[in-house]
Amino acid sequence: MKKIIGTALLLAGLMTYGQTKEDSVQFAKISTEILNNGKAYTELKDLTKNIGHRLSGSEAYEKAVQWAAQKLRDAGADKVWLQEVMVPVWERGKESLQIKTSSGKWTSLKMLSLGNSEGTDGKDVSGEIIMVRSMEEYDKLPPEQVKDKIVFFNYHFSQSYVETFRGYSDAAKYRTTAASLTAKKGGKFAIIRSLSSAFDNVPHTGAMRYSGDQKIPAVAIGSSTADELAELLQSQKVTAKLNSNCGMKGERLSHSVIGEITGKKDKSIIVVGGHLDSWDVGEGAHDDGAGIVQSIEVLRTFKKLGFQNNHTIRVVCFANEENGVKGGIQYGKIAKENSEKHLFAIETDAGGFTPRGISLEMDHNKRKQIQSWASLFLPYGIYDFKNTYSGTDLYPLHDMGVPTAELVPDSQRYFDIHHTEEDTFEKVNRRELLLGASTLTQIIYMIDRNW
Amino acid sequence: MKKIIGTALLLAGLMTYGQTKEDSVQFAKISTEILNNGKAYTELKDLTKNIGHRLSGSEAYEKAVQWAAQKLRDAGADKVWLQEVMVPVWERGKESLQIKTSSGKWTSLKMLSLGNSEGTDGKDVSGEIIMVRSMEEYDKLPPEQVKDKIVFFNYHFSQSYVETFRGYSDAAKYRTTAASLTAKKGGKFAIIRSLSSAFDNVPHTGAMRYSGDQKIPAVAIGSSTADELAELLQSQKVTAKLNSNCGMKGERLSHSVIGEITGKKDKSIIVVGGHLDSWDVGEGAHDDGAGIVQSIEVLRTFKKLGFQNNHTIRVVCFANEENGVKGGIQYGKIAKENSEKHLFAIETDAGGFTPRGISLEMDHNKRKQIQSWASLFLPYGIYDFKNTYSGTDLYPLHDMGVPTAELVPDSQRYFDIHHTEEDTFEKVNRRELLLGASTLTQIIYMIDRNW
Repeated sequence: MKKIIGTALLLAGLMTYGQTKEDSVQFAKISTEILNNGKAYTELKDLTKNIGHRLSGSEAYEKAVQWAAQKLRDAGADKVWLQEVMVPVWERGKESLQIKTSSGKWTSLKMLSLGNSEGTDGKDVSGEIIMVRSMEEYDKLPPEQVKDKIVFFNYHFSQSYVETFRGYSDAAKYRTTAASLTAKKGGKFAIIRSLSSAFDNVPHTGAMRYSGDQKIPAVAIGSSTADELAELLQSQKVTAKLNSNCGMKGERLSHSVIGEITGKKDKSIIVVGGHLDSWDVGEGAHDDGAGIVQSIEVLRTFKKLGFQNNHTIRVVCFANEENGVKGGIQYGKIAKENSEKHLFAIETDAGGFTPRGISLEMDHNKRKQIQSWASLFLPYGIYDFKNTYSGTDLYPLHDMGVPTAELVPDSQRYFDIHHTEEDTFEKVNRRELLLGASTLTQIIYMIDRNW
Repeated sequence: MKKIIGTALLLAGLMTYGQTKEDSVQFAKISTEILNNGKAYTELKDLTKNIGHRLSGSEAYEKAVQWAAQKLRDAGADKVWLQEVMVPVWERGKESLQIKTSSGKWTSLKMLSLGNSEGTDGKDVSGEIIMVRSMEEYDKLPPEQVKDKIVFFNYHFSQSYVETFRGYSDAAKYRTTAASLTAKKGGKFAIIRSLSSAFDNVPHTGAMRYSGDQKIPAVAIGSSTADELAELLQSQKVTAKLNSNCGMKGERLSHSVIGEITGKKDKSIIVVGGHLDSWDVGEGAHDDGAGIVQSIEVLRTFKKLGFQNNHTIRVVCFANEENGVKGGIQYGKIAKENSEKHLFAIETDAGGFTPRGISLEMDHNKRKQIQSWASLFLPYGIYDFKNTYSGTDLYPLHDMGVPTAELVPDSQRYFDIHHTEEDTFEKVNRRELLLGASTLTQIIYMIDRNW
């Protein structure tokens, strides 16, 4: 297979775009250097264990800013700076969810308020739970059946998609809209089944948003907790009681962190980046500590191997991806103000798992050119160039016409641990993480050489 | 990319081998059934937690035999039977390895005797350690420098290969031959650096063999332990003391477990299998509990979806793959005696990780035909048909001219945990395991329909 596809594409590549034997030699150098001497894994351990989770607006996040700036200097960046950006400050505080069945006894459920949700100001809010299994089912409910109730959206993350991001996209609207939908029909708060591919009791947080004036709370429970609650609701009335202190606490000045090695030929820019912030549970290891250390590894490898980069290679550690995307928006704004020319930008924000491909969001000819390099990537297990999305932080650049991309790692494990207390360093495999860094370095090497 | 390769191969396939739209519909049914209703994960939990590790010749192994027979019946096999086979009985017993530096203090090292190794009969055996970093270095040592010494083979598992099986193959001779090489120059026992892709203190066992008459012990230590020992040896004399009780304890009657659904058109056989035995540490979860439950899943899925299989689909749970391959050899022998016609045989023994391809060991035309089905597999992340090995248990069939194959899962994590106490159920991801079962079912569906 490799030989058949490889030969065909190699020929196509050689004929059309000047892909050379030299490139495959450089690809091997990159891979060997990173698999043997890569620092991404030990640096991820440092970030996750010594700083830990780092929600935008927190002190931990500002520590991570200093950490990233130092790591970029250590990696050999010519220039390192902080880009100022105002970010929302959301705080969780204490929170609890209890249920009471016909037995009259209150039981605590493991839960997490959704990010950006308002809480109950430390007061108990309670009501009878009604369950719906889908948006369609909820839409049919008359308001009088919802009024003063707690709505439990028990929508199942689809297991059927081979790429789990499709299951996540399918279920995401429950997380983002449950609170406002519930408020519109007079409900008191919303409970959602977590956007989780696992069948455990681990709740997943993540961003929600309000579409109306009435800001009622929304919380998530794990899949097995959701199943148990659904089972109870088959036979009896169940009351829920929420007490939470979360909410928006204004804004603060924060920073994205940027480091670069200056182009030898011109000052046009190739970006590789991830987001430095994380949710306020777990350690933000796969999401997106992995992307940060992989992006820094690219810069380190360019320096270590002595590549004479034609264009500026810039690493961006974006602020506030999780609950506002203010870092990505500000980056685009400043790029425009400064009339910077961005050649290409790639993000790594889908976990530090074995890479399988690169998603390409750009015009047909540029996609075609990158796809013509496929035979160079195949020996590294990179075969999938079909997707057309790119990272959230890159949309402002994309909207300015910059070709954008995202690393596509294996997705099977990501939504077991995404936005949870389980997203820890121990869940990251060293070789998988380093292979991702290698793929990023290889694609940037090719862009730098050919664009 | 997908589109380009897909279209080309689809056309080739349609023209040459009659691959149809119906096949892609059936592929989707298989994947959806297994991802939603697959039992492999819960059955693996049962096997690993209620039986645990199960070395050939142990009581636990015989429990696993009964377990597998029952699971095959539950999955819907028409016929289930045990195939008798004599297997070696190797037992570990108590074991310890200590070292003493110039400080005069003895320190225990975490270690495992290699499988099949003789021990010290419960007596202390000690001597000065000499270290070599490679076979070439060892070959140059004159016997008088080895006599009465302990030889420490500190050969590093290569990180440079993208497919870790290549690193494993490269390092394997140190495990298999260290004892006999040491004995030949008069050494007392051998210590090897584990065949491990991780940098931790976890020792990896695995089969060794004796090539001479003198059977001295061989033990493994983890990578970080090996690094520490190497560091000590830079500056001082280090003495090692081994006390172990392992050794061969004759043979016993054991069993491979076989279940099948009879062919509707003829009695020719398609085999899917793994090995039921494991090493005597950890839980044998990836190696090869995963392969056993995946193989049973294939049979269950054929029954559940009501496929009218043309040929007999046979699941074989081989005995004694780890330290003798007696199950595989016996299976081939009986197949020959009974003049059974085997169309195709595939093994799954490389861990329950996300599948990426199928390795094909067969004549050119059959390989080409299977490769022409690539576009059917691509939506399931299966793109790699380049490898040409097949599973250890299938070599007797291969030698009889049967086309053999092996599932190729992602290999990045396997050699972190292979043959160790860390090979536990918790290291297996449900979706990854189920996707492997789906790939196996899909290839067997195609073989059954086309051969």
